[in-house]
Amino acid sequence: MIDGFKFAAVAAGIKKADSDRPDLGLIVAEEAAAAAGVTTTNIVRAAPVEITRERLAGGRCRAVLVNSGNANAFTGERGFKDAIELTAAVAEALRTDPALVVPMSTGVVGNPLPVARMRSIIPELVDRLHPESFMDVARAIMTTDTRPKTVQRDGSFSGGTFGMLGMAKGSGMIAPNMATMLSVILTDVKVDPAFLKQALQEAAAGTFNRVTVDGDTSTNDTLLVLAGGLPASPTLGSDAADQTAFKKTLQEVCMDLARQMILDAEGGTKAVEVRVCGAPNSEAADRIARTIAESPLVKTAFHGEDPNWGRIVVAAGRAGVMFDPKKIDLSIGDVSIVRGGEPPAGDWESAAHEVMKRREFSILLDLNEGEAESMILTSDLSEEYVSINADYRS
Amino acid sequence: MIDGFKFAAVAAGIKKADSDRPDLGLIVAEEAAAAAGVTTTNIVRAAPVEITRERLAGGRCRAVLVNSGNANAFTGERGFKDAIELTAAVAEALRTDPALVVPMSTGVVGNPLPVARMRSIIPELVDRLHPESFMDVARAIMTTDTRPKTVQRDGSFSGGTFGMLGMAKGSGMIAPNMATMLSVILTDVKVDPAFLKQALQEAAAGTFNRVTVDGDTSTNDTLLVLAGGLPASPTLGSDAADQTAFKKTLQEVCMDLARQMILDAEGGTKAVEVRVCGAPNSEAADRIARTIAESPLVKTAFHGEDPNWGRIVVAAGRAGVMFDPKKIDLSIGDVSIVRGGEPPAGDWESAAHEVMKRREFSILLDLNEGEAESMILTSDLSEEYVSINADYRS
Repeated sequence: MIDGFKFAAVAAGIKKADSDRPDLGLIVAEEAAAAAGVTTTNIVRAAPVEITRERLAGGRCRAVLVNSGNANAFTGERGFKDAIELTAAVAEALRTDPALVVPMSTGVVGNPLPVARMRSIIPELVDRLHPESFMDVARAIMTTDTRPKTVQRDGSFSGGTFGMLGMAKGSGMIAPNMATMLSVILTDVKVDPAFLKQALQEAAAGTFNRVTVDGDTSTNDTLLVLAGGLPASPTLGSDAADQTAFKKTLQEVCMDLARQMILDAEGGTKAVEVRVCGAPNSEAADRIARTIAESPLVKTAFHGEDPNWGRIVVAAGRAGVMFDPKKIDLSIGDVSIVRGGEPPAGDWESAAHEVMKRREFSILLDLNEGEAESMILTSDLSEEYVSINADYRS
Repeated sequence: MIDGFKFAAVAAGIKKADSDRPDLGLIVAEEAAAAAGVTTTNIVRAAPVEITRERLAGGRCRAVLVNSGNANAFTGERGFKDAIELTAAVAEALRTDPALVVPMSTGVVGNPLPVARMRSIIPELVDRLHPESFMDVARAIMTTDTRPKTVQRDGSFSGGTFGMLGMAKGSGMIAPNMATMLSVILTDVKVDPAFLKQALQEAAAGTFNRVTVDGDTSTNDTLLVLAGGLPASPTLGSDAADQTAFKKTLQEVCMDLARQMILDAEGGTKAVEVRVCGAPNSEAADRIARTIAESPLVKTAFHGEDPNWGRIVVAAGRAGVMFDPKKIDLSIGDVSIVRGGEPPAGDWESAAHEVMKRREFSILLDLNEGEAESMILTSDLSEEYVSINADYRS
């Protein structure tokens, strides 16, 4: 629960016409909240993403209509018409401006929404709105996720304390830059929309945009934050300490949700922090960390709990960044493996294998070239990832 | 067989000390042949690659010593010393200049070669040299390959006909730009080394550098061509038609070996030509084709024979190239799926599924933006790929 917001979810038969699994959710603020969003960098964008970008330009949002089972992506003009019609129906039921209702969709690309079925259930959805139904929506947005992903954090500011409640879905097709994930974060404090946008962009850059499952970004990725749903919500002003506290809490909420996504990666059994330091500049550090984090050979070695450090070094070598392999240090967890470019000696292997047996561990590649660093959080690559994705539509 | 060259392979116990599987091969020209090579673009290069690059600078080569089971990569100074010592032993046995012997290695990264064992077996290896033992070497260089990859082609020129014989290994860790593959091509015609180098670079760019299994490049990739192993070998001069005929045959030999690598991709069951046309420029066409060809979601859909065209379009959209999704056409084999950005209608799905059941098929994405095009040959991604690579060292 978070002051100022209500929730509801219903089975609209989007995934399967006769299923009773909830696949349509609604989040409503008592009054128009300050709102900001970050959306996919893919140039193929779904209709709901285009509409959300447009409607958030005003910095205000009253309601989020979200469905799983169908991404409403690559659905032509009809896709836009459908999303506009559905959000208009929500606006009508809430007696609010349609421009204050944003759509979010996730699921299969290229099929039209079952719009008549969805339209007819919207009155029931609105009737069901309840402050305690947050988890119902968190469940309704799941696709291949094996569990709902939510987080609650509190922060303090000069006006007292504020709460933050977040949900996310996403377990495959996840790459840096907002790949197939939907996330909505709600806070009970009023915030200036311009500050909210900046805070969200900073938080996304350090969290959601640093996780990768398979390097694939999606048409639909959207991260929304809505701030202050009540006329009586306290206001976070321009006090620097207050703004820092808010940003810190938002960052923590995003990181927690991002970690949950990696831990629930399709077929994933590991969450691995790939850290690169000593790079000549941040871009170089980033490119190397991402190349390692997305290498199928590295990710299968993670899966096999195999300290095959050669694959890590080789992936770094093809990142398109110049460095001197003779200067690098590499460790897996706290086990030092490569030192000054020299291959390992002694009994490093069983110790490194022990580290890799954990569900979460980190690797650190130090280029010893400069001061820049980067971190990418990745999953392992398992047989199950393949079978999930080879059979997705059948 | 090809005039002017002899071959031998022995079990040197590189993979396993007590195995009788041949893992060390030797190719020897009767006299120093014209030679050219193309090697990995990875900045982490194995010792044998560095030595080969240096020794081929002279444009001549008498012998190639090649082993599987150990890449002699990331082995520090010792790796260089070992490769130099082993090639010196071959040169001594052949009574030739060590600078005319080049080393090639493939296998695990980071372990020193069992150099004493290899050194002691070199006299036997040289004794065994025979014009008909080509296939023995083709087998000795295999790692996770399930079969040897060889090709023979003839071409005609003003001096008569010439023969070309090629071998390659490589089934995983293959990406454009010479990723874990070794290949040696022999021809019985004498060729100017500068022309040979140019012809080889052109051939590699259009063939080996256009295949991808997993996007990972290696420390060891090397493609060598040796031309004219006999004092009496005919000479290919500067006649334009002769040079064109030679280049064409070399290109065909390379393409045939590249296709064999994809068809033997680790866990692979498909070879798919990803074609992009109508692009604003070649670099854009290339980036999109490679992004599609390396997308895990696209590759698992290939494996599932699932015409999930949304994944193809979405991968194209994240390639970092601007295009208008509303203008694109997409087909799988001869089945048109997307037309002018509109999603498919009618019974396209079963027809597309039929195409994807084939072992080899193509997909074509037309951006309708310009005239440039590109092709990348890729494999599917299977559960078996993961299990092969998760267990590689155990």
